[in-house]
Amino acid sequence: MEKIRPRTLSGFMELMPAPQKQMERMMQILRDTYELYGFTPLDTPILESAEILLAKGGGDTEKQIYRFQKGDSDLAMRFDLTVPLAKYVAMHAGELSFPFRRYQIGKVYRGERAQRGRYREFYQADIDIIGDGKLDILNEAEIPSIIYTIFRRFGLKRFVIRVNNRKLLNGFYALLGLTEKSGDIMRTVDKLDKIGEEKVRAILLEEGLTEEQAGEILRFIAIKGSNAEVLAKLEDWKGKNEIFDLGLQELSTVAKHLTAFGVPEENFAVDLTIARGLDYYTGTVYETTLLDHPELGSVCSGGRYDNLAEYYTDRQLPGVGISIGLTRLFYVLGEQNMLNDALPTAPADCLLLPMTEDLGAAVRLATQFRNAGIRTQIYAEQKKFKAKIGYADKLHIPYVVFLGEDEIARGECSVKNLQTGQQQSLSVEAAIALIQEGITAMSQDSVIIEK
Amino acid sequence: MEKIRPRTLSGFMELMPAPQKQMERMMQILRDTYELYGFTPLDTPILESAEILLAKGGGDTEKQIYRFQKGDSDLAMRFDLTVPLAKYVAMHAGELSFPFRRYQIGKVYRGERAQRGRYREFYQADIDIIGDGKLDILNEAEIPSIIYTIFRRFGLKRFVIRVNNRKLLNGFYALLGLTEKSGDIMRTVDKLDKIGEEKVRAILLEEGLTEEQAGEILRFIAIKGSNAEVLAKLEDWKGKNEIFDLGLQELSTVAKHLTAFGVPEENFAVDLTIARGLDYYTGTVYETTLLDHPELGSVCSGGRYDNLAEYYTDRQLPGVGISIGLTRLFYVLGEQNMLNDALPTAPADCLLLPMTEDLGAAVRLATQFRNAGIRTQIYAEQKKFKAKIGYADKLHIPYVVFLGEDEIARGECSVKNLQTGQQQSLSVEAAIALIQEGITAMSQDSVIIEK
Repeated sequence: MEKIRPRTLSGFMELMPAPQKQMERMMQILRDTYELYGFTPLDTPILESAEILLAKGGGDTEKQIYRFQKGDSDLAMRFDLTVPLAKYVAMHAGELSFPFRRYQIGKVYRGERAQRGRYREFYQADIDIIGDGKLDILNEAEIPSIIYTIFRRFGLKRFVIRVNNRKLLNGFYALLGLTEKSGDIMRTVDKLDKIGEEKVRAILLEEGLTEEQAGEILRFIAIKGSNAEVLAKLEDWKGKNEIFDLGLQELSTVAKHLTAFGVPEENFAVDLTIARGLDYYTGTVYETTLLDHPELGSVCSGGRYDNLAEYYTDRQLPGVGISIGLTRLFYVLGEQNMLNDALPTAPADCLLLPMTEDLGAAVRLATQFRNAGIRTQIYAEQKKFKAKIGYADKLHIPYVVFLGEDEIARGECSVKNLQTGQQQSLSVEAAIALIQEGITAMSQDSVIIEK
Repeated sequence: MEKIRPRTLSGFMELMPAPQKQMERMMQILRDTYELYGFTPLDTPILESAEILLAKGGGDTEKQIYRFQKGDSDLAMRFDLTVPLAKYVAMHAGELSFPFRRYQIGKVYRGERAQRGRYREFYQADIDIIGDGKLDILNEAEIPSIIYTIFRRFGLKRFVIRVNNRKLLNGFYALLGLTEKSGDIMRTVDKLDKIGEEKVRAILLEEGLTEEQAGEILRFIAIKGSNAEVLAKLEDWKGKNEIFDLGLQELSTVAKHLTAFGVPEENFAVDLTIARGLDYYTGTVYETTLLDHPELGSVCSGGRYDNLAEYYTDRQLPGVGISIGLTRLFYVLGEQNMLNDALPTAPADCLLLPMTEDLGAAVRLATQFRNAGIRTQIYAEQKKFKAKIGYADKLHIPYVVFLGEDEIARGECSVKNLQTGQQQSLSVEAAIALIQEGITAMSQDSVIIEK
């Protein structure tokens, strides 16, 4: 038969079993933590009507989207989890309770030019809190505090959640008489980290600003210091513009609440250079950077918006949300050797090797192990002894259990720890306790290690 | 602004939050149980080259598949999890350890005509064990024993895993001189439950069988009784055909091992009418029916095959697998009112209502609750008291915790059980213990209830 060469599309992450276990562990931390903060899981379709997904339209989205006809239907694959959320909330606004807190971890699709570390199919892990007409500012502090908890549970310490406020920026630009241009200016300022101060100044001048205006903007976004110091310096502009004052108040409140949520100052920073390119953010905005890897840019971003679903409904649905680009984060962690290989990635905790022709006793022992929560494989293949041990070794299965006539007669089994080489004949209860203890000890560490 | 009517494509399941929690609970049971049996999770892309997915081609697959061009690429969405597994194993055969045990729970796509209970996007939950050249018969018993464990953990008791063997059938047809026609005959016999004995006889005669041959086939598949009785009656044909004898031996061995795995006779049946339409099964085959809902057909099917990846590699990769059609099963359970509404489906265990302007104390209490594993929402919206309680009520959040000046001064909080209406002021430790206990008690029951 003519064979077709098996292959996976470029830009599509498909992991080997051991890294897949590491990815699953990160996803489990995400699910558990999101739920602890009272978010409910949603699972919207990957395919939607193109008209729904492209309601906003324009820009890269239309170019990158996977869109096609099937019969009479104009279909597209979702390119983020926000648009499907907007559709869902607009559809079900009458049945949902607000504030509506949902999380979704799902694949999204963007037909970008494939390059290292850029994926066409990738996971986003999103949380959003949607209000009905109004939404308290507390939510704008809680969202980054959840990210803090997750990153700490992952094992990260050297990260900063950078926080700013769009009202503060809009008010500031109004003060300079640049309201009309504030959108463009913020998009330019957003590039500061990538292109540097002088290129930003050049673009601002090209955009028609005076030297003085450009200078004032660069002085403003250069304000540095502790959060208290930055907030204090901002008081200089207070009382001149209502929007600025409101933004400053919001930013101060968010900073205060973040402290109450237990986020230490080293992990969050009021940073006036953060603007987020998207026009629909209207209040607090976030970016998250790994201190040792600033070149990665933001690994987790979001903010406050006033109108989640304006393309589908007149109902005003303000909200605040954040998104982790999980696939890219996982790729980068792997590249940096930051994924902890000491955590179990084997498919089983224990490989049970029957040494008798009749497998009944082995099957019953496996059932006892499994009932005790020990992940167990029975290896019944006709292979040489060495090949059987080699199978456990290669997969890093930590325990091998032998069950021969002698052990069966004594009501025992022989447990070998493959890491230490130690082997002992034990009662079933003692074997279970030994393996449980060993696995618990192996599983204490975090998924990510900082070097 | 002109609004676009928000809608979800027909044939795509999109659940409200409460049923979504029930679905997640079923998925968690699937993941946990598959892992207990030593299966490793895989996550292959939803999009693949059309050439890869359609390697086998033909029939409904080509008609139903979502296939499209993007740039120069001929792409398609996966229609099952078996073909991507075959591709994966063929690609990585050199790196994987065999037997390779993997599970995958993922969405697949079939552009079928939409009808009640039929989905175009649906979850399959698959397990497969792949051998390298050979695979021990024990695996063919372990697979249905896992399904037994899962169904019991779901809360089901009234189900039967029906087991047969393709070699037994092939051998039997060889005895009748019908080897050439055995494929067609099995496809016809497979319809017995749907169309009845007389229609099957009519089709067999149309297919060119003699009255005697058709009669012998119908007598054979009519053999009923306990598993031991059925196996004993099959001894009548023994010694006349090698393939038949091998099939009988395999079927007897699988039945014996199933008992060792602890599957009671009431939950598995040797059933000679099961054939599975697909040609690639070569040994044990399975179907699973809910006794009170035979009209649903099989909710979980699979079997043993000799060549997983023959379209991609010369390497012989025999295997055994089974697939649960999760979305359809979930839909049916909902229709039959079999999903247990007594289990918590709220987004949180506890709604914390701050009664002071300063939210610091409430935020710190929420953190203590969350650190104790209590899923907590802080409700900070400016609403009337009744609206706040109404929010918890509507979402079935079981506990509301009030925190006012008095409680803060005493280092306590007021806990109200919304089901009993009982309210008491407690220390933080006592409140945590009370809520933990209540949630544990609420979570004991199974996901599914049989009526």
